[in-house]
Amino acid sequence: MRYIVSFIFSLFCFYGFAQKSEKDVAIRYITKAMQEQEDCWNRGELPCFMKHYWKSDSLRFIGKTGITYGWQKTMDNYNTSYPNKDTMGKLTFNNLAIEFTDVNTVFIIGQWKLERKPKLDNLEGYYSLLWQKKNGQWVIIVDHSS
Amino acid sequence: MRYIVSFIFSLFCFYGFAQKSEKDVAIRYITKAMQEQEDCWNRGELPCFMKHYWKSDSLRFIGKTGITYGWQKTMDNYNTSYPNKDTMGKLTFNNLAIEFTDVNTVFIIGQWKLERKPKLDNLEGYYSLLWQKKNGQWVIIVDHSS
Repeated sequence: MRYIVSFIFSLFCFYGFAQKSEKDVAIRYITKAMQEQEDCWNRGELPCFMKHYWKSDSLRFIGKTGITYGWQKTMDNYNTSYPNKDTMGKLTFNNLAIEFTDVNTVFIIGQWKLERKPKLDNLEGYYSLLWQKKNGQWVIIVDHSS
Repeated sequence: MRYIVSFIFSLFCFYGFAQKSEKDVAIRYITKAMQEQEDCWNRGELPCFMKHYWKSDSLRFIGKTGITYGWQKTMDNYNTSYPNKDTMGKLTFNNLAIEFTDVNTVFIIGQWKLERKPKLDNLEGYYSLLWQKKNGQWVIIVDHSS
């Protein structure tokens, strides 16, 4: 009996350890992905910026014009609002909170800034993102930016 | 051996069943809570409206003026922006998506509307809410309204 209890306890410890390690890997991946998004945006490359959004009709983007469903429509809206490198400006993300709601879902709150040439307004606001592992890949499934 | 396999299978079935039932109860609770929030708001009773927000300094509210931390500060901001029943108007929530990210966390996207007397503008926008079970009680831990 003692051995069975020890075995079950070891299994729990191993499970907890594996989960922590898995979360560390996820945070590193997501942080790097958001850095990549900044870099893509600042090179004026929208398709590259969109790489970490869930390529699905179920992606949801809530912005100043309301809610948009789907990767392609979200990409189209970005193309309309930011037709060239000047309108895109220089994007900075500043994550204020990164929280796992379960091992496959991460909720992020942060601040975004867009510095642009003098003739254009600088823009800034806050985002809340829901990242989720889909087919083994971490992607943004909901972006609420205001 | 066959009995052990049957027993483990039954345990899994029971676990799945219990989780589904727990989720149904949670959705009913949260839906009712949001209905209560509308009712409280429409009676001009802010403290009653705030009842389902996490009474913690860790509550986060992202609104048009930025991010606010804490229940009291969120309540103070509501008091400043909506000092009386006329400015509060008639609130309607319309939930567009209710999703569990784990058994203790629910993510909700929806549309809010505020109908007010003619001299005041009607207001509307979208919300994303993170509800979580804290000490056995479902509460809003993040509200992003824009």
